[in-house]
This record gives sequence, structure tokens and C-alpha cells, in this order.
Amino acid sequence: MEFSSKLLENAVNEMSQLPGIGKRTALRLVLHLLRQPEERAFQLSYAIQKVRAEVNFCKSCNNISDTELCEICANPNRHNGVICVVEDIRDVMAIENTGSFRGLYHVLGGKISPMDGIGPQDLKIQSLVEKVKSGETKELIFAMSPTMEGDTTNFYIFRQLDGLDVKTSTIARGISAGNELEYADEITLGRSIIDRIPFVASLKS
Amino acid sequence: MEFSSKLLENAVNEMSQLPGIGKRTALRLVLHLLRQPEERAFQLSYAIQKVRAEVNFCKSCNNISDTELCEICANPNRHNGVICVVEDIRDVMAIENTGSFRGLYHVLGGKISPMDGIGPQDLKIQSLVEKVKSGETKELIFAMSPTMEGDTTNFYIFRQLDGLDVKTSTIARGISAGNELEYADEITLGRSIIDRIPFVASLKS
Ligand SMILES: [Zn+2]
Ligand SMILES: [Zn+2]
Repeated sequence: MEFSSKLLENAVNEMSQLPGIGKRTALRLVLHLLRQPEERAFQLSYAIQKVRAEVNFCKSCNNISDTELCEICANPNRHNGVICVVEDIRDVMAIENTGSFRGLYHVLGGKISPMDGIGPQDLKIQSLVEKVKSGETKELIFAMSPTMEGDTTNFYIFRQLDGLDVKTSTIARGISAGNELEYADEITLGRSIIDRIPFVASLKS
Repeated sequence: MEFSSKLLENAVNEMSQLPGIGKRTALRLVLHLLRQPEERAFQLSYAIQKVRAEVNFCKSCNNISDTELCEICANPNRHNGVICVVEDIRDVMAIENTGSFRGLYHVLGGKISPMDGIGPQDLKIQSLVEKVKSGETKELIFAMSPTMEGDTTNFYIFRQLDGLDVKTSTIARGISAGNELEYADEITLGRSIIDRIPFVASLKS
């Protein structure tokens, strides 16, 4: 693509680094911003800079939060004996949206994926194991997407818990295999938590 | 969508103002930026701010340019007697990419669209008419998209040129190279028969 302006080219190049945004889409987005009042572009620019500079992760569950402990962890009405283990904060949002879970979460920040160079040390697994060792956790619910990477991650964590007194379960596979968790409809997702099964049982399928 | 952080919510809201970017996509993009090194997000933020603050439009053709006159208008080897009238700088890029046009452009900055509240006064039509009046232009090629808005815009400009000594043409409408004839819409197919060209001429392209 030949640009008539370096400024434009630079903005399009930066925008097209975003996942799923090709050069053509990036150009369309930048031209849109050029037709809008300056404030619109500045507000977008500022919001991106600010969220990246000031983002904070809950020191207990790793959810994105503006406070040291997120609202869920800080809520005394949540059951702190049950922890739902998820990949991403989008999964927290999706499960919260079902209204069927009253425990806490643990956000791993991804899943084990050798293809993408993501190993256990890149995820918040150690802090989860420490949390279980410290005693209050009665049950871990693995709510990873039902993909090979999700299953690998569940199983890796399961082995780290060897000898610890904690129940493990996975969300019921009402969700079709291979689907991303965040796209599941609320009813299916809600039921899959209620119908969770012991993790060991899930290995037999 | 319930967010665990105002900073995150704000960034997602700003991002989802972009055309074709819904809330889910915006969230995915912002989370991607949060996983990247800070510099990546800052560079994107800076590029957006900079292009919006410093963008310049060629004073002759309205193309985006870092200089007062764009490279095309400033190129003495281009034929300044022929002006190709386009909606958007993307059309300039697309036509330049074909390598088959050596004249100049005039970027209207949109098309007449009463539905979207865009009238002739919102477009760079007056400056085009003034350019023709000033004398050097021998031919205007209308290269608007073959839509009702494009046709309306062409016709509006055509009427403004009444009494002026300038040739007007539109880009040929026909079957795209490589397309199956049976899938062409009837209007295009009909016009392509009426506007047929000598076979010998077609061999030269
Ligand atoms: Zn938390
Ligand atoms: Zn120019």
C-alpha cells in the first residue's frame, strides 16, 4: 500500500498491529477518525494510553480492577471457598453475567499453548496453587474453553494440586467442544456451572 | 457489559465508537493491548493523536499529504489537463495502484447522501468548479462508486459545469476481470453490452 502521507501511513501501520485488523480496515478506521472532530480521536488516543499505563490487576485473582482487590474478591457475600479458574477476564464477565456463580475467580491470563510459546510459567498458576495451599479453598472449578489448550491447562493445574485437600470440577460440557467460552449463550454457560462434574470424571470421556 | 474497571470500560467505549467495531471486538482489542509491552499501546495512541492533530490536505486536490501540495499535484510529469474526481483518498490509492492514470485527482471527501445529511456544501465541489473555470482542465473523469449517491454526485457536479469548456467522462462500468458473467448484476451486464468496445481495442489493455 502506497500512502500519500507518512503520518497517515504510521497511524495505519500501528492500527493494523491489532489482531484481526488488516491494512485496509486500519485505513478505513484512521480515515474515519480524520473526518471526526479532533476530540474524538484525542479521547480514543488518551483512553488507550491511560488504560495501558494505569491498568491494575487484582492482587488476589488477577482480574482487571481499579482497586487493589477487585469488587468480587472484596465482596464479603461471595463464597471464598469456591474458585472458578478462567483464562481471561472476558470469561469472568461472561460468567458473572449468568448470575449463577457466587464464588470467587482466578484469572490465569491465558492457557498453556506450546504452539504460541505459552508455558505454565507465563500464567498465574503458581499463585493459584499457593492460594489452595493456604487452606480456605474447598473447590476449584476449571472453566477453561473446552479446547486442547484448555484441557492441557486444566490437567497441568490438577497435577500441581496433588496431595492437597481440594475438590476439583470442570464446567459441564453443554458447550460444544472446540468453542470459545466467551461466545456461549448465558443459559448454557450458567447450567454448565451448576452441572459441573468432578475433574477426574471428565478425564474418562 | 459490566466492567470490573472504569479505565477498561472507557477504553472499550472509545474503541467501539470506530465503525464496524462492536463492544466485544473493542474489548478483545483493548485486552490485546494490555498484554503487549507498554510501548505498543503508547505508539498506537501517539500515532492516532499525531495524525489527527497534524493531518494536512493538499491545497489543490484535497488528498491527504504531509506537504502543502501532494506528491501527485507537485509532479511535473503528471498531465494537469485531466482530473479524476474521486470520493476518498482510498480511491486515489486504488487508481494509482493500477498504474494506468497519469493525470491529477480531485478528492471530494464523500458523496452527496441526503440520508446521511451530506449535501454538496459538505464536499469539495466548489473548489473543483473553480479549478475548471481557471482554465487548464480539459477533461474530468468521474470515478465515483456506481451507486445512487455516486450517480447523484456526478450529476450535481455535471450541472455546475454548465457552459464551461470541459469534457466529462465516467469510468467504464462492466464485468470485472475474472468474474463469471452469470453472476454480474443485470444493470452492469446491460450497460456492458451497450458500452461495448471494439474487440481490437480490448486487446491492448
Ligand atoms: Zn479479585
Ligand atoms: Zn494534490
